[in-house]
Amino acid sequence: MVVLGIDPGYAIVGYGAVEFAGSNCRSLGYGVITTNAETDFNLRLKTIYDNCSLLIAKCKPDCMAIEKLYFQSNQKTAIMVAEARGVIILAAQNAGVDIFEYTPLQVKTVVTGYGKAKKAQVMEMTRRLLKLTEVPKPDDAADALAIALCHTQAAGTALRRTLVERNKTKYQ
Amino acid sequence: MVVLGIDPGYAIVGYGAVEFAGSNCRSLGYGVITTNAETDFNLRLKTIYDNCSLLIAKCKPDCMAIEKLYFQSNQKTAIMVAEARGVIILAAQNAGVDIFEYTPLQVKTVVTGYGKAKKAQVMEMTRRLLKLTEVPKPDDAADALAIALCHTQAAGTALRRTLVERNKTKYQ
Repeated sequence: MVVLGIDPGYAIVGYGAVEFAGSNCRSLGYGVITTNAETDFNLRLKTIYDNCSLLIAKCKPDCMAIEKLYFQSNQKTAIMVAEARGVIILAAQNAGVDIFEYTPLQVKTVVTGYGKAKKAQVMEMTRRLLKLTEVPKPDDAADALAIALCHTQAAGTALRRTLVERNKTKYQ
Repeated sequence: MVVLGIDPGYAIVGYGAVEFAGSNCRSLGYGVITTNAETDFNLRLKTIYDNCSLLIAKCKPDCMAIEKLYFQSNQKTAIMVAEARGVIILAAQNAGVDIFEYTPLQVKTVVTGYGKAKKAQVMEMTRRLLKLTEVPKPDDAADALAIALCHTQAAGTALRRTLVERNKTKYQ
C-alpha cells in the first residue's frame, strides 16, 4: 500500500510517499510544492492543485493522509491554509484517492508513542522508521512523511479496517 | 459584462449572475448549490467544485465576485468555509475567469451607500437595482446578487479599470 502524506500550506506544501508492506515501511520520495509570495493568491491555489494532481498521477497512492487544521491565533493565516487544503483535498477526490485526516497530536502519538513529543523527536522517529540515513529536509517534507507513517502505523484500528474493506471492494 | 456573484459556504453556496451594460444591471439568474450534511466533507468539496464549474460553463461570466472571509468566533466553521471557498476559486481559475473579492462591509457600502446597513436594506436595494418584483430567495442567493452588484457598481475605481484593461488585452 502506498500512502501519500501531505503537510498542507499555501507557501509550502510538504509531501512524502511511504510504501507499507507487512510491518515494513519505506520512503518512495518526498519534497515540497512551493508557491511564490508575489503571485496572486488565487493563482497560487491553482498551482497547488495542479502540482498535487501531478504528484498523485506520478506516485499513484492508495490513499492520502493529510494533517487536520487546528486552532491558530492568526485567523487570516488559518483561512489561507484552509483554502489551500481545500484544493489539495479536491485533487485527491478528483483522482479517486481515499483521504484520511490526522491531528498533529495523533501524528506525534502514533509515530513516537508520546503526544507531547518535540518536533525533533518526531523527525528522528520518522528517520528511524523509514531507515533513512538523515532526517528528511525541509521540515515540511519530514512532517508529511510523519503523517504518512501515522496512517501506516495506525494499522489494526477501526479506521484502517475500514480502508482495507473499502480497498477489497474496490479491487475485487 | 456578466458578473457571477458568489456567497461562499460549504452547506449552501449562493450564486447570482448579473449582466451590466452602461448603467443598467439585470439578473440573469440566481440560486444555491447545496451539499448534504450527512455526506463526507471531502466529497462535499468535490460537489461544490463540480457544480461551480458547471455554473461557470453555463453562464460564461466575464468575472467572478466573491465575498472575502472575515473573522468568525467559531474557527472550525471558518476553516470549513475557507476550504469550500478554495475550491470555488479554483473552479474560476481553471475556467480562466478573473476573480474579484469584496468584504461584507464593501458590499453593504457600495450597494446601499451605508456600511452599517442591515441585511434587509441590502436585500431591498439589490431588488431595486435589479428591478425585481420580489427580494430574491433564499438569502444566500440574494447575498450573491449583492456581491455581483457590488462589483458592477464599483465602476470607475482603479479595480474596475484594471479589469477593463485586462479584458482589452484578453480579447484583442
